[in-house]
Amino acid sequence: MGPMFAPLQNDTFLRACWRQATDHTPVWLMRQAGRYLPEYCATRAKAGSFMGLATNVDYATEVTLQPLDRYPLDAAILFSDILTVPDAMGLGLSFAQGEGPKFAKVVRDEAAVAELAVPDMDKLRYVFDAVTSIRRALNGRVPLIGFSGSPWTLACYMVEGGGSDDYRLVKSLMYSRPDLMHRILAVNADAVALYLNTQIEAGAQAVMVFDSWGGVLADGAFQEFSLAYTARVLAQLKREHAGVKIPRIVFTKGGGLWLKEMATLDCEVLGLDWTVNLGHARALVGGQTGGQGKALQGNIDPNVLFAPPAQIELQVKRVLDSFGVPHTDATQSGPTHIFNLGHGISQFTPPEHVKALVEAVHTHSKALRYKR
Amino acid sequence: MGPMFAPLQNDTFLRACWRQATDHTPVWLMRQAGRYLPEYCATRAKAGSFMGLATNVDYATEVTLQPLDRYPLDAAILFSDILTVPDAMGLGLSFAQGEGPKFAKVVRDEAAVAELAVPDMDKLRYVFDAVTSIRRALNGRVPLIGFSGSPWTLACYMVEGGGSDDYRLVKSLMYSRPDLMHRILAVNADAVALYLNTQIEAGAQAVMVFDSWGGVLADGAFQEFSLAYTARVLAQLKREHAGVKIPRIVFTKGGGLWLKEMATLDCEVLGLDWTVNLGHARALVGGQTGGQGKALQGNIDPNVLFAPPAQIELQVKRVLDSFGVPHTDATQSGPTHIFNLGHGISQFTPPEHVKALVEAVHTHSKALRYKR
Repeated sequence: MGPMFAPLQNDTFLRACWRQATDHTPVWLMRQAGRYLPEYCATRAKAGSFMGLATNVDYATEVTLQPLDRYPLDAAILFSDILTVPDAMGLGLSFAQGEGPKFAKVVRDEAAVAELAVPDMDKLRYVFDAVTSIRRALNGRVPLIGFSGSPWTLACYMVEGGGSDDYRLVKSLMYSRPDLMHRILAVNADAVALYLNTQIEAGAQAVMVFDSWGGVLADGAFQEFSLAYTARVLAQLKREHAGVKIPRIVFTKGGGLWLKEMATLDCEVLGLDWTVNLGHARALVGGQTGGQGKALQGNIDPNVLFAPPAQIELQVKRVLDSFGVPHTDATQSGPTHIFNLGHGISQFTPPEHVKALVEAVHTHSKALRYKR
Repeated sequence: MGPMFAPLQNDTFLRACWRQATDHTPVWLMRQAGRYLPEYCATRAKAGSFMGLATNVDYATEVTLQPLDRYPLDAAILFSDILTVPDAMGLGLSFAQGEGPKFAKVVRDEAAVAELAVPDMDKLRYVFDAVTSIRRALNGRVPLIGFSGSPWTLACYMVEGGGSDDYRLVKSLMYSRPDLMHRILAVNADAVALYLNTQIEAGAQAVMVFDSWGGVLADGAFQEFSLAYTARVLAQLKREHAGVKIPRIVFTKGGGLWLKEMATLDCEVLGLDWTVNLGHARALVGGQTGGQGKALQGNIDPNVLFAPPAQIELQVKRVLDSFGVPHTDATQSGPTHIFNLGHGISQFTPPEHVKALVEAVHTHSKALRYKR
């Protein structure tokens, strides 16, 4: 059965996921709980380390809710990391101060690949407990999004051992031994699907797959090594839980060239980065009122947040206008837009600028609807 | 008048630039003279530093010719750096061992922008002398390509002071003070045009604009801050020199989404990175036999070169096949392909793998034509 939760008070985000009319464009921000918030830094200091923060249910709950107390955001997203699954596979994830993720063990040869298996979900219990705790703490304010890295993105880190600027090791393996890469990706896909399904059982009301590094692949390789395994995840996901349908979001950074192919994915929402023209994306995959299609999520450049509020407002308008007027017919589904950044928020962002952005989205997206 | 040079023996590359039929697909590699070659490292050691190498005419000539002695490449490219122009503006370019470029002075405020001006070309005399020296040393073997960074790409480095992974400073300036950014870009465009024209007078037989960082811009910002200033450069370029027409290549890394808009540029060739499907690009901008269009240059992932030769050959075939059979009608122009990497060659590349790639391009591109 799973836990019982308070009824949802703001369903704007979920309605937009299902391409239903809303009175404003819902907004949330990738990495909205993060280092740009002083209250986040305070909690993180108490926790001692990033993993100390992510693995502690109370801290994870606390930081997930922090941005909601500052801004009228329309969704919450689980505070966690995209690399928890390979950590549970035994690769030993850590974050050195001021640096990116690092794995103690890397997967670069046949022997290391042979050892890989879908991890016991008990090792990720801290994540599922956090989901339930956050959902309770939200008390129905806004929906909670669960997430995971995509099979390809996880593979990048598992082979490279951390971040990379040329993806030399993971691509060397891919081009030299595609058989080994396919085996890594198959294990990752099954692990990610189980991980997301368990998040859904714990209380996640939507799930998102972050294909952060799909865009570094060549045409052809993207379809074979990233898209196919995202599809394998989606095929295994629960369609509903406790009588409520669970929308699925896929975000491929740098994936704008493959939008038509991503339209075939069995998911409800496609996330877009700032290089994509939302009007063009809507024409390609957004569908018509009454027809099939995908909701679109994105896509302002996070660096806009370094400009003064008047410039932020101007850029927010440009992004809303590029999507155009969302459909407003309450009797049927149609093209919808979920406002977000095109990538995670920078740690250097002034918090008061985020307020200007969120307010501009609400104000102008309402005006856009009434202007007609 | 300028210097006199030996007649050209291999015009395959230039013919392909002009969309004329060739018996094989010409190939050259971005950064083909570089650290992956032991002979390059030896010359660089003699020179003491990267700038010591780039500013010495004899060394620059020596390293430019090194890859041609190893591989049957169809073009040479001037050995230099994309950042020579801002260096000549007085920003003080240097390269610390094992690190990227760094400027002593940065351009981040109104006062620094006001100081910017098109530099005296005498400060870049070492580049033009190298062009003439290389052209002489080539003795007509293959054509020599001159190049520059694009106005936007130069601006990124001038504002950031070096490389960046988030372009926070340059984008902050762009979103906060678009007027200042436009002023930087206008100066850069006029400087780049003069720089390329002087390279043409010194002996460059084709010129290329590297918009290495255009792809980090949002849709809308790319058109306004990158594409418009590349167009401003192109509008000022000499169409011919000493009675010979000079083809112009524009390469925007990550620019695949804007291909249709780039088709309007007044240049002969568009460079593409590996995310772009060449067949799709050909359909969009390659034109028909007898019609208008652009030659396409690219676009294999440089990481393919880390795979064994058999896999390299397979990937070369895939790239050639994705473009399809180039037109073969000697009486008129039509779609042509210049084989290249989608980005500069990695310093870790095994030199013998480059040989496998170049040979595979020649062999398979001939087979592709005769197969019909």
